Amino acid sequence: MILQSVVDLVAICAKKGIQNAILSPGSRCAPLTLAFVRHTQVHTRTISDERSAAFIALGMAQQLEEPVALVCTSGSAALNYYPAVAEAFFQQIPLLILTADRPAEWIDQYDGQTIFQPDVYGKHVKGSFELPDTGNNPDQLWHSSRIVNEAINLAKQFPAGPVHINIPLREPFYPGKDEKIEFPEKPRVFNQEHTYVQLSEDSLKRLSLRLQSFSKILIIAGQQKPDKEIQSIVDQLSKEKKVVIITDTISNLQSDQTISLHDHWLGNPELSQELEPELIISFGKSIISKSLKLFLRKTQASHWHVQEDGKAKDTFQRLSRTIPSHPVFFLNWLATELKAQNQDYQNSWKALEQNTKSALSELLEKTEFGEYPALAFCLSKTPPLSKIHVANSMAVRYLNLLGKRKQEIICNRGTSGIDGSNSTAVGCTFTTKEVVTLITGDMAFFYDRNAFWHNYAIPNLRIILLNNHAGGIFRLIDGPKNQPELEEYFETKQKLTAQHLATEYGFFYSKVINQHELELALEDFYSPSLHPKILEIETSSPDNAEILKSVKEKIKLSLEN
Amino acid sequence: MILQSVVDLVAICAKKGIQNAILSPGSRCAPLTLAFVRHTQVHTRTISDERSAAFIALGMAQQLEEPVALVCTSGSAALNYYPAVAEAFFQQIPLLILTADRPAEWIDQYDGQTIFQPDVYGKHVKGSFELPDTGNNPDQLWHSSRIVNEAINLAKQFPAGPVHINIPLREPFYPGKDEKIEFPEKPRVFNQEHTYVQLSEDSLKRLSLRLQSFSKILIIAGQQKPDKEIQSIVDQLSKEKKVVIITDTISNLQSDQTISLHDHWLGNPELSQELEPELIISFGKSIISKSLKLFLRKTQASHWHVQEDGKAKDTFQRLSRTIPSHPVFFLNWLATELKAQNQDYQNSWKALEQNTKSALSELLEKTEFGEYPALAFCLSKTPPLSKIHVANSMAVRYLNLLGKRKQEIICNRGTSGIDGSNSTAVGCTFTTKEVVTLITGDMAFFYDRNAFWHNYAIPNLRIILLNNHAGGIFRLIDGPKNQPELEEYFETKQKLTAQHLATEYGFFYSKVINQHELELALEDFYSPSLHPKILEIETSSPDNAEILKSVKEKIKLSLEN
Repeated sequence: MILQSVVDLVAICAKKGIQNAILSPGSRCAPLTLAFVRHTQVHTRTISDERSAAFIALGMAQQLEEPVALVCTSGSAALNYYPAVAEAFFQQIPLLILTADRPAEWIDQYDGQTIFQPDVYGKHVKGSFELPDTGNNPDQLWHSSRIVNEAINLAKQFPAGPVHINIPLREPFYPGKDEKIEFPEKPRVFNQEHTYVQLSEDSLKRLSLRLQSFSKILIIAGQQKPDKEIQSIVDQLSKEKKVVIITDTISNLQSDQTISLHDHWLGNPELSQELEPELIISFGKSIISKSLKLFLRKTQASHWHVQEDGKAKDTFQRLSRTIPSHPVFFLNWLATELKAQNQDYQNSWKALEQNTKSALSELLEKTEFGEYPALAFCLSKTPPLSKIHVANSMAVRYLNLLGKRKQEIICNRGTSGIDGSNSTAVGCTFTTKEVVTLITGDMAFFYDRNAFWHNYAIPNLRIILLNNHAGGIFRLIDGPKNQPELEEYFETKQKLTAQHLATEYGFFYSKVINQHELELALEDFYSPSLHPKILEIETSSPDNAEILKSVKEKIKLSLEN
Repeated sequence: MILQSVVDLVAICAKKGIQNAILSPGSRCAPLTLAFVRHTQVHTRTISDERSAAFIALGMAQQLEEPVALVCTSGSAALNYYPAVAEAFFQQIPLLILTADRPAEWIDQYDGQTIFQPDVYGKHVKGSFELPDTGNNPDQLWHSSRIVNEAINLAKQFPAGPVHINIPLREPFYPGKDEKIEFPEKPRVFNQEHTYVQLSEDSLKRLSLRLQSFSKILIIAGQQKPDKEIQSIVDQLSKEKKVVIITDTISNLQSDQTISLHDHWLGNPELSQELEPELIISFGKSIISKSLKLFLRKTQASHWHVQEDGKAKDTFQRLSRTIPSHPVFFLNWLATELKAQNQDYQNSWKALEQNTKSALSELLEKTEFGEYPALAFCLSKTPPLSKIHVANSMAVRYLNLLGKRKQEIICNRGTSGIDGSNSTAVGCTFTTKEVVTLITGDMAFFYDRNAFWHNYAIPNLRIILLNNHAGGIFRLIDGPKNQPELEEYFETKQKLTAQHLATEYGFFYSKVINQHELELALEDFYSPSLHPKILEIETSSPDNAEILKSVKEKIKLSLEN
């Protein structure tokens, strides 16, 4: 017999809009597994490596903007979820983590799979709950259903994030033969009404007054999902109010109005002299560009950060005001309130953008073969209506250097780890029929190879693997490249190619080592297929470092002239 | 320039006997990496997947009985260590976990790889420390060196376990070109003197008096390393005092005096009637045999648990006394104090052991091909002077059913996860020139395949892979085998073989599907080699279930006669 509280939990999840659960095998969690699998409104998949399972759930929730449930057995399974839990926390992605546990009396008694599960995710969840360990009497059922409702509401509420319910379970875990699981028709559900925070009249007056004194405003969009409403306001602010809008690739707000190639010139003091803003307005989450951060940290600008919960994020060390507001409200207000800004200031940015754009495309066409120009070429073939998941380390930096994209750009910038990119991309493919392109380096790719260890079709996945047989980023930063330990301890040179992995999982595979092969391979890379495709671009780490350096120098020269 | 506190840390580690460090690549941790690599007395290796890195360190520390240092960069890297940290905590294995971090002012500011690292391992470490974030003034150097000494002492002190030092670091991370790291000749070191706990005279008198009333004593050895001293005492207790000594495979105390095949009969009430003890004395950590636990939980026996720290471990729900003593002291005292026990009682156990042994070897020779008889055959070829790492789930259960072994048996029974068996075995090979045999099922094997993703030779590793393309254990327990969800959600059927992995990593590989092929493959499986060897035994999960069931029934029949 399966506990009523578990049956209710699943019914409540379904009723509150959780349509997907990622399960991992185990016996302790069997009641949860069976209840989820047998509920007609929840789509379940099973993934054996819990680390991948959690990143897959995250990749789905990232797209769906609804919590995805995760179910695992007791013991270290829950710990393997943790990297994805932290990523979800900082990237504000809703996850409902359900960990089966032994009842309290059996913890740490030299018996079976136990660890200390309650509160195991520390500060990296929005809430941590424990279900009553017997669940068939009315008060306990009331308690359980309250916890489940509260947990799901919390996961969804801004800022969204992971919540954890630990679920102690006693045997028996399985229904008898032919015994059915009866879900309640009307499980007890309480939803939380939606709210918005409104800036007070006196705050708006103060801001309005303060705005008068600025004529050089920089708006910086941090990581977020594509948002047409925000897009149209920032474009308008650029066009009508001459505000400079900076959009890293993960802002998903790039348009012909915005600045996206700033990484090419902000590192050069000579080129950045006239670019110092008086006011920085930021919204969204993190940005990629290190040179933008370093540039702004040296300015005297004021910085207003707009975020509904009003949390202080002092990325530029210039924070002077936190504005607890949804960006849409604030930017709309700004669009009506702001006087036109200094046109020359905007022109300086736009000229650099335009000149860099021309110089870059020409340079990349001419340069020798390497991952930087190869990636640029690949991207020219990527369908505009598709999604790109880009791994951390060099992949996302290249993408940011390569300028505006039409595709939705997804990247795990919450903790900026390389540990779950493949899985997150796989999760994304589970939510869409559009092509999902994963752009990754070899370290991130092989790290998370268990992303593919399951039986579900992912025909729309395309993988562009930049394989330089090393963590090439270490050759591109000043410190490690001069150390004798570079290859073994920083790049961690490794010889793998994706060929065996592709054979193992039945993926289409091609490897290219020059432009001609790349062009041939790309001819049908994006054609429909029953299986994922891997395009492995093999290059040498020292060559890549040279190319990046040389392109950078040539752009600098061309901008100085 | 590298911080003096980091240089001192490494010098203190070396001075206090830490001879091995497992590093993972990263920039934030570069000062630690460089200092460890350049210290002549520490052997360093770099492993890219932190989950594997930590289990490899655990596998080494398990053998060396000395802390192994782990070094990772900031962010989610530390979280990937966590499954191994928990295993080390419950298995009482010393690890010194050194996580590089950003300084406090940069945490959660939308900048770079940060999570909340201090205290991140919760209850699963013995201690959690934070190094001062600038470390060049005398008071801070004093503070740092004190922390490092205290942490290492704590890791070693009984019960040994993991300790965590979080290390906030500011740029620059790298020494200038040609700049040398100068280690202090005499780093500040304070060691902790060794102690033992002594039972008081009145306690010993009380125990002595209490012992008079027992004539059926069962001594149960839990998981521990091989120990000649304890071995000789328990053998003596069996021979001279007619005590019944039960030794699971992970007790490493199996001898011709001890009972090891108890799992074959304790599940049958008819066979166990005369076996009920009056007193259970246990020492060491966990045991494998579920039927032993269930059998003892139904008895009226008293249970004394012997453990230096006196912690209550009520595995049999019969705990009546905790005895804070080293097992050697207590067992020695017992050997002098105890009167001879009931010979008939010991005879009943020994007869069952003997009869099972004869029946089992005959049955396994006759039965059709499957993983149970195949494993028995493999073990007959395993060199006696070698080590066996056995994965959780079915592999360790089979091993326990197969009776006495001469080899050291290693198994991650702290949390009983399948997440790090390969890596732990790899770590073991780093500490010995003896053959290390990894016995594993397919789920555990593919879960932890990143164990092999590095550049270090492991020529002495032999892998016996029981591949039934599923988590076969779920077909062997009553609940799930009757559910329609068995194959997809419990067994999680998967089609991989190790062939591609073997090609990828240059391992020797052979696959067998019958006894004849197995015999051929084993002919040179254990011959010396430059590369590891994988012997994949491919069987079907339903067949294995049938074989196990049939052997069990036939043994029951033979014992009843």
